Amino acid sequence: MDPATSPLLTDLYQLNMMQAYLEGGKTDTAVFEFFFRALPARRGFLVAAGLETALDFLEQLRFSAAEIAWLERSGRFGRPLLDYLAGFRFTGDVHAMAEGTAFFAHEPILRVTAPLPQAQLVETRLINILHFQSLIAAKAARMVLAAPGKLLVDFGLRRAHGAEAGLMAARASYIAGFAGTATMLAQQKFGIPVYGTMAHSFIQAHDDEAEAFARFARSRPENLVLLIDTYDTEAAARKVVALAPRLAREGIAIRGVRLDSGDLVALSKSVRRILDEGGLRETTVFASGGLDEDSLMAMAAAGAPIDGYGIGTSLATSSDVPALDCAYKLQEYAGIARRKRSAGKATWPGRKQVWRRYDADGRIEGDTLSLESESHPGEPLLRPVMRAGRRVPPRPGLDECRAHAARELRRLPPSLRALSPGATCSVIVADALVRLAAEADRRQAGH
Amino acid sequence: MDPATSPLLTDLYQLNMMQAYLEGGKTDTAVFEFFFRALPARRGFLVAAGLETALDFLEQLRFSAAEIAWLERSGRFGRPLLDYLAGFRFTGDVHAMAEGTAFFAHEPILRVTAPLPQAQLVETRLINILHFQSLIAAKAARMVLAAPGKLLVDFGLRRAHGAEAGLMAARASYIAGFAGTATMLAQQKFGIPVYGTMAHSFIQAHDDEAEAFARFARSRPENLVLLIDTYDTEAAARKVVALAPRLAREGIAIRGVRLDSGDLVALSKSVRRILDEGGLRETTVFASGGLDEDSLMAMAAAGAPIDGYGIGTSLATSSDVPALDCAYKLQEYAGIARRKRSAGKATWPGRKQVWRRYDADGRIEGDTLSLESESHPGEPLLRPVMRAGRRVPPRPGLDECRAHAARELRRLPPSLRALSPGATCSVIVADALVRLAAEADRRQAGH
Repeated sequence: MDPATSPLLTDLYQLNMMQAYLEGGKTDTAVFEFFFRALPARRGFLVAAGLETALDFLEQLRFSAAEIAWLERSGRFGRPLLDYLAGFRFTGDVHAMAEGTAFFAHEPILRVTAPLPQAQLVETRLINILHFQSLIAAKAARMVLAAPGKLLVDFGLRRAHGAEAGLMAARASYIAGFAGTATMLAQQKFGIPVYGTMAHSFIQAHDDEAEAFARFARSRPENLVLLIDTYDTEAAARKVVALAPRLAREGIAIRGVRLDSGDLVALSKSVRRILDEGGLRETTVFASGGLDEDSLMAMAAAGAPIDGYGIGTSLATSSDVPALDCAYKLQEYAGIARRKRSAGKATWPGRKQVWRRYDADGRIEGDTLSLESESHPGEPLLRPVMRAGRRVPPRPGLDECRAHAARELRRLPPSLRALSPGATCSVIVADALVRLAAEADRRQAGH
Repeated sequence: MDPATSPLLTDLYQLNMMQAYLEGGKTDTAVFEFFFRALPARRGFLVAAGLETALDFLEQLRFSAAEIAWLERSGRFGRPLLDYLAGFRFTGDVHAMAEGTAFFAHEPILRVTAPLPQAQLVETRLINILHFQSLIAAKAARMVLAAPGKLLVDFGLRRAHGAEAGLMAARASYIAGFAGTATMLAQQKFGIPVYGTMAHSFIQAHDDEAEAFARFARSRPENLVLLIDTYDTEAAARKVVALAPRLAREGIAIRGVRLDSGDLVALSKSVRRILDEGGLRETTVFASGGLDEDSLMAMAAAGAPIDGYGIGTSLATSSDVPALDCAYKLQEYAGIARRKRSAGKATWPGRKQVWRRYDADGRIEGDTLSLESESHPGEPLLRPVMRAGRRVPPRPGLDECRAHAARELRRLPPSLRALSPGATCSVIVADALVRLAAEADRRQAGH
């Protein structure tokens, strides 16, 4: 049973509310928007990701007879809800920002327009998908900006939070500009390039490190990268130099060495020197082990001769910011704008659009958050992606999303490209939206 | 396709190494142990979780014909590896700590003894399972200790990192002492009690808050909890008081109210007063919204009259410590103890056992880390759980694991029960283990 495709991967309260909606005749059209609230200082921008996964979810959401029977046995739900769920299909419209789009606080990245019970049911899983992938895409984008020109590879599966997190972190980081992943399944499922070297256990299982290198080289000669930090990194680099001519005679080139511990700046310099002096100028130095965007920048500043990085934990868990404040909120029901006023969590009501303005150099100048019905200068970022439960073409492939993200990163203002803490982009709230919020407050106060 | 059951949910390098092991005849028995390295100040102890999930994985690991064909098409692997994978069954032994056991740094919680290629292949997913569930169980245990006697419910699915993370966070937090979860699928799959109230959208979809309360009460009268912070919390509490007598005449009791924003200490006190003065002394106050163990302790210290808490993000992402340093390391191969010496990542070699010592009051005094072959005072924590690829009875149910965890939390030393930063338990490394490490170093230095 794949939890990702179970309609029961939701909160009990969604079903409770659906029952009450059906009994109360609250089945008119609802508009929910998904957005992130204030961003932390280390996230001046986010990168939209997860839309394809979300649309798959909406298209495929069904209750099996066994699931309906299980719900019935719980004794919690009445026949009308059970019948409704048995025939459930998502028939709503979805508008969204393209995957790979850079965005800012309070901007909806996805809007659902559907009968209220439908739009309610899908809340939990939509947030679960869009929050995580956008979180990881944003984290990965920071690393891409911190290490221009370097080969970045996702090594995060083992510390990712479960199976789907590992798979989706590979997807989101690839969109944001990573070269690929170590996760085989991400290649099978998404066609993402896969990278892999060897582990310490391979070295340890041999009585002699040089023998382990030779054995591995002959078994896996393509894209050969040797791990050299199991015992003594510099000694191992000299063993690599000694081994290279023998392998060369067999037609095997040592493509790279990997460092996974110690002072990576100092070791990369000494290893580079040993390789160069040994005639292995083409052999690259790859590093891994507890890295994040800060260490990538520090290594660049220190002139570490490292050609690529494998990044695991900090990427797959977005470890400095493992969750962001986000919400999927009812903005309109039965044609009337709605607004939550809870302390610190007030929302902008109504169906909205985000307009992006660019300066003369094509850099992002700022956004305007408006009602959908208005027109403002700039490019509208929310586009229809599903109508009446069916996808609207074009349906971009993963590489198109990745190319779009690369363009977006180039268009970011310099302070965001430099990852300056606290930097972000200005989002103007259009006058009509401010007036609508005041109206919604007045109407509610009247009750 | 459930990523959790795909044998391709692994790193490319595992398959690379397997090919080299097979070609090099390195198929003798290997012993790998999974352990956590130094613990952060806010994690004085961890709680073992995920073992059942891990054993399911080992029992069910198979490559389908389609997966073998896909691997073959990649052109990366030779016939011997493909044939080996096509017939793959895990045939090894596993020793482990029971789920719910409290443990400390450097202690193995799981040991795999199997032919080297088998033990290597399973590394990635074993870490993926055991790291996450133990991480969440430890985080949940902190909340259980911070809020004795309170009803704690997992609300984390939406911000969990994907589908499996949400499901497994429900499982791990239940083991650690949570009363239940909001996630329906966790009830269907694991029988975990499920809790749920209503969302702001339900209130907002009605023109009148009191009408929304009445509607919901009549549709979902059992365990009725009303959400009262959508507009004005105290005004809503008074609406609840006004509604109660009418509902009582219909046989419906308002079991509780939920606060989800604002100053929870002040609001819980004023709401409690409003409810009490309105004769609703039996109606409980439930709180949610960005809570963690620190806020639970602060609310207890401030005397907030709150009966239960829904906890989401901080639980399901372990947000203050979203990942821990852990490893699955080769400790013995072909009967010879092995040791990695990488800077800052050296390991204790050999097959090990953990002995737990208790004081006269039954509190944990400390542990001894020894070779498996030794005997030391105390209770041995690693027990056989799988032999030759089959589970060894007894196979504890989830409620047994939960009862075990409750006992473990009672036995923790006071500084750990108080969550004092930096407190932990002493782990003595037995002399024979220190000698074996020195021997392994000497042997390696000889090469």
